[in-house]
Amino acid sequence: MLERISSVLISKCLITKDQPLLLGVSGGPDSLCLLDVLHQLGYQVIVAHYNHMLRDESNSEEEEVRKLTTKMNFQYITGRGDIRSYAELNNLSLEEAARISRYGFMFQQAEIFNAQAVSVGHTADDQVETVLMHLLRGAGLSGLRGMSYLSLPNTWSQSISLVRPLLGVWREEIQNYLIERNLNPTQDTSNLDVRFYRNRLRHEVIPYLESINPHLCKKLWLTAEILREDYSVLENLTETVWDKCIMAEGEGFLALAHAPVQDLPLSLQRMLLRKCISILNPGLRDVDFESIERGIKFLNNPSIYGRVDLVAGLYLLYEKNEDLIESSNDIRLRDSEIDRRSNLLPKERVWLATWGADLPNTEWPQIVPNTETKLVIPGEVLLEGHWRILAERLENSEEVTTQFKDYEDPFQAWLDLESLQLPLLIRTRLPGDRLQPLGMENGSIKVSDLMINCKIPRRSRERWPLIISGEEIAWVPGLRIAQGFQIKETTKGILHLSIFYQSLQQ
Amino acid sequence: MLERISSVLISKCLITKDQPLLLGVSGGPDSLCLLDVLHQLGYQVIVAHYNHMLRDESNSEEEEVRKLTTKMNFQYITGRGDIRSYAELNNLSLEEAARISRYGFMFQQAEIFNAQAVSVGHTADDQVETVLMHLLRGAGLSGLRGMSYLSLPNTWSQSISLVRPLLGVWREEIQNYLIERNLNPTQDTSNLDVRFYRNRLRHEVIPYLESINPHLCKKLWLTAEILREDYSVLENLTETVWDKCIMAEGEGFLALAHAPVQDLPLSLQRMLLRKCISILNPGLRDVDFESIERGIKFLNNPSIYGRVDLVAGLYLLYEKNEDLIESSNDIRLRDSEIDRRSNLLPKERVWLATWGADLPNTEWPQIVPNTETKLVIPGEVLLEGHWRILAERLENSEEVTTQFKDYEDPFQAWLDLESLQLPLLIRTRLPGDRLQPLGMENGSIKVSDLMINCKIPRRSRERWPLIISGEEIAWVPGLRIAQGFQIKETTKGILHLSIFYQSLQQ
Repeated sequence: MLERISSVLISKCLITKDQPLLLGVSGGPDSLCLLDVLHQLGYQVIVAHYNHMLRDESNSEEEEVRKLTTKMNFQYITGRGDIRSYAELNNLSLEEAARISRYGFMFQQAEIFNAQAVSVGHTADDQVETVLMHLLRGAGLSGLRGMSYLSLPNTWSQSISLVRPLLGVWREEIQNYLIERNLNPTQDTSNLDVRFYRNRLRHEVIPYLESINPHLCKKLWLTAEILREDYSVLENLTETVWDKCIMAEGEGFLALAHAPVQDLPLSLQRMLLRKCISILNPGLRDVDFESIERGIKFLNNPSIYGRVDLVAGLYLLYEKNEDLIESSNDIRLRDSEIDRRSNLLPKERVWLATWGADLPNTEWPQIVPNTETKLVIPGEVLLEGHWRILAERLENSEEVTTQFKDYEDPFQAWLDLESLQLPLLIRTRLPGDRLQPLGMENGSIKVSDLMINCKIPRRSRERWPLIISGEEIAWVPGLRIAQGFQIKETTKGILHLSIFYQSLQQ
Repeated sequence: MLERISSVLISKCLITKDQPLLLGVSGGPDSLCLLDVLHQLGYQVIVAHYNHMLRDESNSEEEEVRKLTTKMNFQYITGRGDIRSYAELNNLSLEEAARISRYGFMFQQAEIFNAQAVSVGHTADDQVETVLMHLLRGAGLSGLRGMSYLSLPNTWSQSISLVRPLLGVWREEIQNYLIERNLNPTQDTSNLDVRFYRNRLRHEVIPYLESINPHLCKKLWLTAEILREDYSVLENLTETVWDKCIMAEGEGFLALAHAPVQDLPLSLQRMLLRKCISILNPGLRDVDFESIERGIKFLNNPSIYGRVDLVAGLYLLYEKNEDLIESSNDIRLRDSEIDRRSNLLPKERVWLATWGADLPNTEWPQIVPNTETKLVIPGEVLLEGHWRILAERLENSEEVTTQFKDYEDPFQAWLDLESLQLPLLIRTRLPGDRLQPLGMENGSIKVSDLMINCKIPRRSRERWPLIISGEEIAWVPGLRIAQGFQIKETTKGILHLSIFYQSLQQ
């Protein structure tokens, strides 16, 4: 067995002898066996014991492990936590709370001691239980493939891996090893308690299924081995399409390019979505089928619209940046106009974001809400995200009139200077803001309704810059100017405003 | 439910109304429901009933289905088979024998009636049982993905697909439908018999597992849905690498190019091997883990050598076509010599073949065993697979001597014409054949030992051409000439023999 584990340590766990390895030791059979094996093989081990303080024997167990470690001349570190309180506070099962605390402790210590990896004692039996647990709860490949000899669970650390050298060793072999080596493990009494789901599997379900197929465990173990390789191919494929599908990453959000995601086979769409979720919420375990399917259905809906909640405060939001331009009348833009707004996000994208995330908005002009900025003429004001507003004074002439009539560009305005009350202000909308847009015969319309009609996404409306003359709205950039400020035959001075995107590269 | 099945028929089974569909109807709830649904939806159905003659009620059931079909104005065809005898003769389980006979009948009839597909009544419950059965027996993705709405099981037909429109409908829904429509299915009493593995799953295992997770069936059904998509990505990838990996296909064999197969990820190696097996043995179901792993281990063994048995009379055989040239002394070949043997199979390949298969052998000269051919001088004899042997007479000269000394090419021979007993014969080895190869000081060696020493694969030895002078072996082409026929200082006439590959293109 020593030889088998030695070979796994080298070829599957990629552990070397020249850097310490942090080993979580509960004192139970598995970790005790692994500790002894690593000692015999001459590895540098830092023994980490986490006292869950859940049972009466917790303290004496801590002491047992300490004694053994000292005899082996290994460094010994301990952590403690009140798991019961932690579980209650965070609405977690005891088992889950214990797991989170224990792994948090081990990886934190591994970083401090510059360990190459954290090692745990999961066995072949644990693997079988994991596979079966996932199967009964419902899982895809990511669950059915079970645990890995080597993984980088970035929940706990960006660089330290988690290794499981005993993943191919059966509990029975460990028992025999311990007897042979005259080692006495502590008995975790909770193992005998059918309270925990996993224990029910171990003591009831697996023995029952073995009555149907005596080779069940070996078969399920092999299934995991094989599915792990299948999963890894899909994982690599997902890696390959990542850059094409993910257009932006930021604090609490990812932007998916809709078209390439739609082109992926279903399987890779699911992989991609799971990967995105794990990036935004690395601690989230076992994302359920239904959440993923909800997302997949949303993404593939031919009349995709709006948003859908996914899981754990994450949502998908569909946006199409043509809406504004298409709906703001039948405006023909010059090529240069279109160029001005290119170099941005793709036409159609789907945001995956946490509830609180501040999604970027570079394709529309935006300003900080509830602020006022004076617009000096001539002058230029910098808005958010590389957008600018430029103000210049023109004399009325046939040339100017032709120009503004010719280019019905909603991102430029030609206003009658004399009708305006200077200085102009730039601010976001206020409750009750209305205007009579150019072309409307009678009455006025709420600014918010105008924005809704033009299909400006809700999140952009709140930050949309308005040009204010006195108490009146003179221009809603990108949409309309107010009827009252249009150029008349008598107009002498013209205010030309232009709002545009100018990335740093240009 | 009608609407749901209609949508599945169109979008997942790709069934149209302008061509008949062959429906297997046992008279049980599932097929009866499907028959009624197809009738209501206005499909053209050919009803096929197969009488397994296993139970007393078999004949009355056949009659029941006939009556119903006549009422619906559908064509009705029946088949019969003595399943019990068939099973005993072929050493099959009753269930397996029934399945083979039934599907054979349905596809045969589907071809006759030009049906677009064969349809069967598998339900969502059947799907769950299939997944669970595979899991408990041990299976990879190909088993865990369960059955498909649409498949092309080329075991039965190259062009007619198999569809399962009820794969998303639960047995309970079918029961309710039958009550509502006032339809009385026959009761297959074997369903209530725990003799069959599947029935044990249905009546014992699933109810037990449902006591652990009440949503088990729904979850397992979804698992299959999801794994099917994952499998399909891997299947497409396998398709992509196929041409690179498979160098030759023939009656009972495939030649795998060793290097590209080794470069594949494990998962795709397994997929490729399974696909190869299914091509050579389309009827083989549920190839087990162990056989595949034996093959994978063989393929990835850094010191791969010889052969390994796989499954159902299939074996893998490794060959490297350098062996001969490398081991036949330190022979430096001119480029042109190497060219002469290129355009063949890759240097290293692995045959997957059935026991009886006649593997092609184009890279070595071969002839039909136990035949004798005269070699006329000058003249040319055609061997197997585009190999030829050319004989010409030369006068001894300094030029000739230099030539044969310079090019130590084992595929050419310069012999002392006067020592030879004409006409020369070409034949394969006989028991007891020996020669004293050029360079051997004393005694002689068995031809078979010489071939083994030179690592000529067993299957090529039996067809290797030998050049015979009287009772003696004058030349083993590719290996050595006999000491007694070498050119001496006194040699006047020289026989120049040359054996070479010449494909039709050249």
